[in-house]
Amino acid sequence: MSKHYDVGIVGGGIIGQSIAYQLAKEGISVLVLDRHKGGSGATSAAAGMLGANSELEQNDAFFQFAKESQRQYHLLQDELSNFSQIHIQLVDKGMYKVALSQEEAIALKNAVQHHETLEWHTRETVLNHEPSVSSEIEGALHIPEDGHVSPKHVCEAFTKSASLLGATFIENAPVQSIKKASVNDYILSTPQGDFTCNKVVIANGVWSGYFFKQLGLPNRMKPVKGECLAVKSNTLHLEKTIFYDHCYIVPKGDGRFVVGATMVEDDWSTTPSLGGIHALIEKVSPLVPGISSAQLISTWAGLRPQSEDGKPYIGVHPEDDNILFATGHYRNGILLAPKTGTMIRDFILKKKIDENYVRAFSVTRNLAQSNEVIV
Amino acid sequence: MSKHYDVGIVGGGIIGQSIAYQLAKEGISVLVLDRHKGGSGATSAAAGMLGANSELEQNDAFFQFAKESQRQYHLLQDELSNFSQIHIQLVDKGMYKVALSQEEAIALKNAVQHHETLEWHTRETVLNHEPSVSSEIEGALHIPEDGHVSPKHVCEAFTKSASLLGATFIENAPVQSIKKASVNDYILSTPQGDFTCNKVVIANGVWSGYFFKQLGLPNRMKPVKGECLAVKSNTLHLEKTIFYDHCYIVPKGDGRFVVGATMVEDDWSTTPSLGGIHALIEKVSPLVPGISSAQLISTWAGLRPQSEDGKPYIGVHPEDDNILFATGHYRNGILLAPKTGTMIRDFILKKKIDENYVRAFSVTRNLAQSNEVIV
Amino acid sequence: MSKHYDVGIVGGGIIGQSIAYQLAKEGISVLVLDRHKGGSGATSAAAGMLGANSELEQNDAFFQFAKESQRQYHLLQDELSNFSQIHIQLVDKGMYKVALSQEEAIALKNAVQHHETLEWHTRETVLNHEPSVSSEIEGALHIPEDGHVSPKHVCEAFTKSASLLGATFIENAPVQSIKKASVNDYILSTPQGDFTCNKVVIANGVWSGYFFKQLGLPNRMKPVKGECLAVKSNTLHLEKTIFYDHCYIVPKGDGRFVVGATMVEDDWSTTPSLGGIHALIEKVSPLVPGISSAQLISTWAGLRPQSEDGKPYIGVHPEDDNILFATGHYRNGILLAPKTGTMIRDFILKKKIDENYVRAFSVTRNLAQSNEVIV
Amino acid sequence: MSKHYDVGIVGGGIIGQSIAYQLAKEGISVLVLDRHKGGSGATSAAAGMLGANSELEQNDAFFQFAKESQRQYHLLQDELSNFSQIHIQLVDKGMYKVALSQEEAIALKNAVQHHETLEWHTRETVLNHEPSVSSEIEGALHIPEDGHVSPKHVCEAFTKSASLLGATFIENAPVQSIKKASVNDYILSTPQGDFTCNKVVIANGVWSGYFFKQLGLPNRMKPVKGECLAVKSNTLHLEKTIFYDHCYIVPKGDGRFVVGATMVEDDWSTTPSLGGIHALIEKVSPLVPGISSAQLISTWAGLRPQSEDGKPYIGVHPEDDNILFATGHYRNGILLAPKTGTMIRDFILKKKIDENYVRAFSVTRNLAQSNEVIV
Ligand SMILES: Cc1cc2nc3c(=O)[nH]c(=O)nc-3n(C[C@H](O)[C@H](O)[C@H](O)COP(=O)(O)OP(=O)(O)OC[C@H]3O[C@@H](n4cnc5c(N)ncnc54)[C@H](O)[C@@H]3O)c2cc1C
Ligand SMILES: Cc1cc2nc3c(=O)[nH]c(=O)nc-3n(C[C@H](O)[C@H](O)[C@H](O)COP(=O)(O)OP(=O)(O)OC[C@H]3O[C@@H](n4cnc5c(N)ncnc54)[C@H](O)[C@@H]3O)c2cc1C
Ligand SMILES: Cc1cc2nc3c(=O)[nH]c(=O)nc-3n(C[C@H](O)[C@H](O)[C@H](O)COP(=O)(O)OP(=O)(O)OC[C@H]3O[C@@H](n4cnc5c(N)ncnc54)[C@H](O)[C@@H]3O)c2cc1C
Ligand SMILES: Cc1cc2nc3c(=O)[nH]c(=O)nc-3n(C[C@H](O)[C@H](O)[C@H](O)COP(=O)(O)OP(=O)(O)OC[C@H]3O[C@@H](n4cnc5c(N)ncnc54)[C@H](O)[C@@H]3O)c2cc1C
Repeated sequence: MSKHYDVGIVGGGIIGQSIAYQLAKEGISVLVLDRHKGGSGATSAAAGMLGANSELEQNDAFFQFAKESQRQYHLLQDELSNFSQIHIQLVDKGMYKVALSQEEAIALKNAVQHHETLEWHTRETVLNHEPSVSSEIEGALHIPEDGHVSPKHVCEAFTKSASLLGATFIENAPVQSIKKASVNDYILSTPQGDFTCNKVVIANGVWSGYFFKQLGLPNRMKPVKGECLAVKSNTLHLEKTIFYDHCYIVPKGDGRFVVGATMVEDDWSTTPSLGGIHALIEKVSPLVPGISSAQLISTWAGLRPQSEDGKPYIGVHPEDDNILFATGHYRNGILLAPKTGTMIRDFILKKKIDENYVRAFSVTRNLAQSNEVIV
Repeated sequence: MSKHYDVGIVGGGIIGQSIAYQLAKEGISVLVLDRHKGGSGATSAAAGMLGANSELEQNDAFFQFAKESQRQYHLLQDELSNFSQIHIQLVDKGMYKVALSQEEAIALKNAVQHHETLEWHTRETVLNHEPSVSSEIEGALHIPEDGHVSPKHVCEAFTKSASLLGATFIENAPVQSIKKASVNDYILSTPQGDFTCNKVVIANGVWSGYFFKQLGLPNRMKPVKGECLAVKSNTLHLEKTIFYDHCYIVPKGDGRFVVGATMVEDDWSTTPSLGGIHALIEKVSPLVPGISSAQLISTWAGLRPQSEDGKPYIGVHPEDDNILFATGHYRNGILLAPKTGTMIRDFILKKKIDENYVRAFSVTRNLAQSNEVIV
Repeated sequence: MSKHYDVGIVGGGIIGQSIAYQLAKEGISVLVLDRHKGGSGATSAAAGMLGANSELEQNDAFFQFAKESQRQYHLLQDELSNFSQIHIQLVDKGMYKVALSQEEAIALKNAVQHHETLEWHTRETVLNHEPSVSSEIEGALHIPEDGHVSPKHVCEAFTKSASLLGATFIENAPVQSIKKASVNDYILSTPQGDFTCNKVVIANGVWSGYFFKQLGLPNRMKPVKGECLAVKSNTLHLEKTIFYDHCYIVPKGDGRFVVGATMVEDDWSTTPSLGGIHALIEKVSPLVPGISSAQLISTWAGLRPQSEDGKPYIGVHPEDDNILFATGHYRNGILLAPKTGTMIRDFILKKKIDENYVRAFSVTRNLAQSNEVIV
Repeated sequence: MSKHYDVGIVGGGIIGQSIAYQLAKEGISVLVLDRHKGGSGATSAAAGMLGANSELEQNDAFFQFAKESQRQYHLLQDELSNFSQIHIQLVDKGMYKVALSQEEAIALKNAVQHHETLEWHTRETVLNHEPSVSSEIEGALHIPEDGHVSPKHVCEAFTKSASLLGATFIENAPVQSIKKASVNDYILSTPQGDFTCNKVVIANGVWSGYFFKQLGLPNRMKPVKGECLAVKSNTLHLEKTIFYDHCYIVPKGDGRFVVGATMVEDDWSTTPSLGGIHALIEKVSPLVPGISSAQLISTWAGLRPQSEDGKPYIGVHPEDDNILFATGHYRNGILLAPKTGTMIRDFILKKKIDENYVRAFSVTRNLAQSNEVIV
C-alpha cells in the first residue's frame, strides 16, 4: 500500500509547487501529483512579469494581495537558492506602460494619482532612459516595482526545495478523480494507482474546471491561449519591460527578450499558430522598431486559466473544508504564486487569514449573482 | 452542444489512430481524444521494428496476427502516402538475431525448423553480409521479414489520413471518466467539456489501466519503461537490424541508428536515467564494436503498456459490447497497429472475426484462471 | 605525414558531396574538407524543390542542364539508398505557379507555349485539385515535373555513400589557403594541418569568393540570405508545391509544410530576423489562407551563393586545370547537385563534356565583358 | 570601403570577447570577427569552473594570475549586468577534490600546507556537508574559493557590453589570412571581404595554430576534446562541485548538474561519441552514486586549446608587437578570461604589466628549449 499523506496537491505548476513548498517547510507531509512534468503547463509559457501595477487597475483586495506577493519574491530569491541552489532570476528594473495616443496618455496619467510609486514620463524622458523605444509614443507610465522572474526556475526551485524538505512529487500521474472515502480520507485516482490524503488542494490550472464540476461546483475555467516568442540581439538594449495593451517585451537576465502574448479565447491547443505569431509581431514591432532586426530564437504557447471574473479561486469547498482550490490565476499566476502558497498554508494550518482576501477569492463568490445552484 | 459521434476513441497513439483511420475509411463518424499530442506516448519512443519473428517465439494465434499485421504495412505504405503525403519509411531488409554463446546458437537454430523463411547464418556468413558485427558472435538467425517503419510517421499518417477522411482529432483533451448516459450514449468527460458517442474504444496505452478499473474489470496495465538512444556515423554501415536479448541496433532510413532498449518495470517516468543509458551502452557495444566511435545524437524513453500475460487486449467489455479495448500492446504495438485497427473496425461493423484472435486477445481471458471477480 | 589524395574538395555541402560521390564511384581517392559539419551551409536551409521549370525561365543551356539534373534524381534515389540506406525523400507530385493578377496570368500562359509538359489551369481546375489554395487566384501554371527532395538527406546520402566507397570526409577542417607546391601537388592548409592532393575542387558555396580572389580571379560571390519556416497541420492538405514570386509552400513527405523564402542581399547572418519572418508570413498567407491556423514548428535561415549573373561556376581555373570550381548555385543548388557532380567528374576524368555547358558555366565567362584583368 | 579599426580580434569566444570588452571600455575602436557565432567554440562547451586551486598545483606566476582572474569575476558580475542586463550566474560555494585511495589522500593533504584557504575534510565531514557523495571516499580537499559561472552567459555579457560600448562584432566571418599591408595596417581577409586595423589579436582558441604558422611561429596548438553531459534531479542535492581526476559534477544555478569531461587528444570532432559518454558515466558514477537515477538531459563536446606546455600564450609576436596572441587556455579559459582581457588591454595601452606574467605566457618561451628557429 502506498503512504498516506496529510495534503495531496493536484497539479505541479507554479501554484501547486508554491503550496507544496510552504507546507513542507512546516513539516506537513505533502504529495504533489502532476499529469506530466511539473511546470509544463502555463507556468513554462509565462513571461514571468510581476505586474501588480501594470496588470491590476483597481486598488482593491486583489491588488493588495498582488503587491504582497510581489514583495515576497525578494525573500524567496535567497530562501529558494539556499535550499535548492536554483536562482529564480529576479530582475527588478521596472516597467514602462506606454501610451500611443493622447487618450491612452490621459488614462495612464490618471493611474499616477492613485499609486505613490508610479510616475508619468514624457516621450523625452522615456527615450532618454530607453533609446530603443519608438519616438512615436506619447509617453509612458513608469512602474518601478514591476520586475520579473524566470517562471521555469521559480517552479523548479519550489519543487526541489519542497522535495529536499520532505515533500513527494510524482510526475506522469494524472489525477482522474477525487473521491472522499471517509472523513479525512480522500482518494486521488491515477493510472499509477490510488493515493490517499487528509486534504486535497486542486491546483491544476485551466484543467481544474473538471474537478469543480466533479465536486459539485458550477465554476467554469476557460483557457485563454497566449502565444509568445523570444529574440536575441547584441545591439538592442532595454532596461525595463515595455508594456502596451496586454503585450510586452521583457528583457530577461539571460539576454533574451521575451515578447508576448496573444489572447485567444477557448482554444485549448498549446502550440503557436502561424497567424498568432504574425499578429504578435505586428503588435509589438511598432513599440521598439529595432526589434525587427533581432534574431528570432523561439516561439511557444500556453493556456492561462481564466475564472469567470478573472480573479483566482483560493479557498475551501463550500461544503467541505478539506477540499481546497488554488486556481484561476489567469494572466498573473507567476506574480501571485508566493502569496497563494502562504494563503493555502494558512487555511490548512487554520491560521488567521485577511477576511478581504478570503472573500475576494472565495470559490462561491459569484454563485449568488449567477443564481446557479450547487448540485 | 458538441456533436455526437458514432465512435469515441480514448488515446491518439498509433493504436487509436490506426483504428480511427480504418473507421473513417468506412464513413463512420469518429472522434479521437488525446490528453496531449497524438503519438506522444510509447509510439514516439518506439524503434519501429516489425519483429513478428524476432519477438514472438511460439507459432500461435498471436504470431499469426502479428504476421498479418506485418504484411499489412506493405499496402499501408502507399495508401497512407496517397491520403496524407506522409511516408512511413518502411525498410524491409531483415534482421539478424545474434547468438553470443553456443547455447544461444542452439536455441536459435531450433527456431529455423519452425519457420520457413528463417535461416541460420554462421559467423562467416554474418560477417560477410554485415562486416560491422562483432567477430565474437557464434552466428545469427536470419529473419528476412522483420523490417521496420518510423512510428512517428506512421502515427502522423494515420492521423492526417483519418482527419482528411472526416475523423475529428482533439488534442489536449484528457479523458477523466467514461460514463454510460443511456443505451448508445457514452459520455467522455474532459476538462474541455463532455463528448458523447455510441461506442467507446479505450486505446490509451499504459494509461488505460484506470479505465479497466473504472469500468469494473480487474485487468491491470503495467509500465515497462524503455530507454533508447540514437547515433550517427558516416563510416558505420548496417543493412539489417542487429538484435540480441531484447536489445537492438536499427539502421533507420534517415541515417540514424536507433539503439534500444532497457526494460525497467513499474517505473512511470518518461525520461532516460543516466544509469539506464549506461546499461544500454554496455549491452549493445559488444554487438557492433564500431558503434563506440559513432556520434551520440539523442536519448529518450517511453512506457510499454504491458498486460498481465504480455498479449494485447483487443475486444469488447464482457458486459457491454459498446465498450471496446485496444491496448496492452507491450513491446509490439507498432507491429500490431494495422491489424488491431482492422480488427476493431470489424467488431464495430459486426463483421466476422477469426475466433482464435477473439479468444487470444479477449479482455476476460485471464479472469477465470486468476479467480478474480468482476465487480 | 598525412595521405596524399587525387582530389581534394573544399566544402562538404550538397555540391561537394555530390562530386565526392561520383569520384569515389570511379575509384578515385578523394578528400572532402568541411569547416564545420557537412551540409550545414545553404544545403540544410534549402526547401529542396527541384524547380527546373519554375525557377528558370529561358530555354537555354542552363535550363537543359537543370532538367538533366532533375531527371538524375530518379536514379539516385535507389542508388543512394542501396549504398547508404538513406532515403532522399523524393516527392514527385508537381507544382502550381500561381497568378494573382491578370498580368501574371498572361505571363504564365506564355510559358506554356515553350514547354510541352506545362499546362495552364484555371482557378476552378486549381481549386479542384488543391482546395486549400485561395480562391482569389487567377489560375496557375501546372508544372508536373518540379518535385522536391530532402536536401539534408540527399547530402547525408552522398556523404555516407562516398565514405563507404572509400572517400575521406573530414569535418571541422576549415581550409585557410590553397597553394600549389609543385605540379600535381596542392596544399590545403587547415588548423588541423596541411592536406595534399593532385587536384582541388572549390565547392564551399558562398564562402568560395575568398578562394577566387586568392587564386587570382575577380569573380565575386554574394550571399542572398533566405529565411524559412515550417508548419504542421492535420487538416491542411496540399498535394503540390504552391509557388508565387520566389516564395513557396512545399508539402514535405514527413508531414511538414516548408514555407520559404525571403531574399536579403548582402546579409551574411544565418539566423532569421523577426522582420524577415514577418515578411515571409505576409507573403505566403494569402496563397493558402488556412495556413494561418497551422502550427508553427520551426524557423531558420541560410545563404544562397549568388554569382554575378546568377548561374553557377562549374569548370576549371583559366590558367590551371587542376583547380576546379563548383559553386555559385544560388537558388538552385539542390536541383543542380547531381549534374554538377557528374560534370566535375567528367572534367577530372577528361571525358567529353557538352560544350554548351562548359561555356555557360565557365569561370571566365563574364571577365571579358567586365574588362577586369586576371592578376 | 569598410571602416578601419584600432584593434581587430580574431575569434569571438570568451577570450576574444573579454578583450573586446576591456578595450571598448577604454574607448578604443575594436572589431571582433568570428567564423561562426560568438561563444560557439570551447566556450559553450565548458563547465565554467573557476578552478584556480583545483586545476593548478604549483604556486607559480600562472597560479597567481589565475587567482587574480578568479577574483575579478566578483566585480565583473555586477559590471556586466549593468551594461548588458545579462547575469553570469556566479556560484561561490566551493569545491571538494576527492580522494578515493590513501595515496590520493596524502597527496591532497600536502596541498593544504601550501595554501591558506584549503582544508582537508575527513570522510565524515564531507558526508556531513554533502550526504550525496559516496561513502567509499577517503576524504576530500575543501577548496572554498573555486566556484563557477555560466560560460555562455559570461561570453554573451562581454559581447553585448562591448557592443553597447561601441565595439563591432561580426559573425560568420572566418579570418582566412592575416597580412601586414604597411605599418599600422593589418588586413584580415574573410569571405565577407577585408577588414583593416592597427593591431591584431589572435584569440581563436584551438584554431589559432594556423595563424602561429602563417606568422612564422613554430608554436603548435593541439585539441583535447572534452565530452560532457548534464542531468537533473529533484532529489539529488550538491552544494559544492565534486572533483576527481580531471572529472567533476558541477551543481549549476539553473538546477542542472554538469558532468565532465573526457580528455581525447588530437580529435577535432565536436560531437560526443557513444564511447566517450560511456567512459564519462563510468568515471563519475562512483563519486555520487545517486546520480545514476538522475535524468540525462543533454550531452555535448568541445575542444580545449592546448599549448605545448599547457599554459596560455598571452603576449606579442617576437618581431612585431602589433600582433598579439591570447590563446592556448586549455582547461582553464573560463577562469582566465577576465585577467587575459585586462592583460591584453595593458599591452595595447602600453601600461605596465607584471614581468612574471609577461615571461610565463610569452609566445617565445619554449622556443629556445625546443631549439626551433623562427622562420
Ligand atoms: C503566454 C503567457 C504569458 C504569461 N505571462 C505571465 C506573466 O508575465 N506574469 C504572470 O504572473 N503570469 C503570467 N501568465 C500566467 C501564468 O502563467 C499562470 O497564471 C500560472 O502559470 C498558473 O499556474 P498554475 O500552476 O495554476 O497552472 P499551470 O502552470 O498550468 O500548472 C497546472 C499543472 O497541473 C497539471 N495538471 C493538469 N491536470 C492535471 C491532473 N488531472 N492531474 C494532475 N496534474 C494535472 C499540469 O500538467 C500542469 O503542470 C502567463 C500565461 C501565459 C499563457
Ligand atoms: C523504448 C520502446 C521501444 C519500442 N520498440 C518497439 C518496436 O520496435 N516495435 C514495436 O512494434 N513496438 C515497440 N514498442 C512498443 C510500442 O511503442 C507500443 O506498444 C505502442 O506504441 C502502443 O501504442 P498505443 O497507441 O497503445 O500507446 P501510446 O503510444 O502510449 O498512446 C497512448 C495515447 O493515449 C493518450 N492518453 C493517455 N491517457 C489518456 C486519457 N486519459 N485521455 C486521452 N488520451 C490519453 C496518450 O497521450 C498517448 O498519446 C516500443 C516501446 C518502447 C517504450
Ligand atoms: C532558404 C533557402 C532555400 C533554398 N531552396 C532551394 C530549393 O528549394 N531548391 C534548390 O535547388 N536550391 C535551394 N536553395 C539553394 C541551395 O541551398 C544552394 O544552392 C546549395 O545548397 C549550395 O550548395 P553548396 O554545397 O554549394 O553550398 P553549402 O551548402 O553552403 O555548402 C558549402 C560548405 O562549405 C563549407 N565551407 C565554407 N568555407 C569553407 C572552408 N574555407 N573550408 C572548408 N569548408 C568550407 C561550409 O561549412 C558548407 O558546409 C535554397 C537556399 C536557401 C538559403
Ligand atoms: C568540455 C570542456 C570543459 C571545460 N571546462 C572548463 C572549466 O570548467 N573552466 C575553465 O576555466 N575552462 C574550461 N574549459 C576550457 C575553456 O572552455 C577554454 O579554455 C576557453 O573556452 C577558450 O576560449 P577561447 O575564446 O580561447 O576559445 P573558443 O571558445 O574556442 O573560441 C574561439 C573562437 O574563435 C572562432 N574562430 C576560430 N577560427 C576562426 C577564424 N579563422 N576566424 C574567426 N574566428 C575564428 C571560433 O568560432 C570560436 O568562437 C573547458 C573546455 C572544454 C572543452
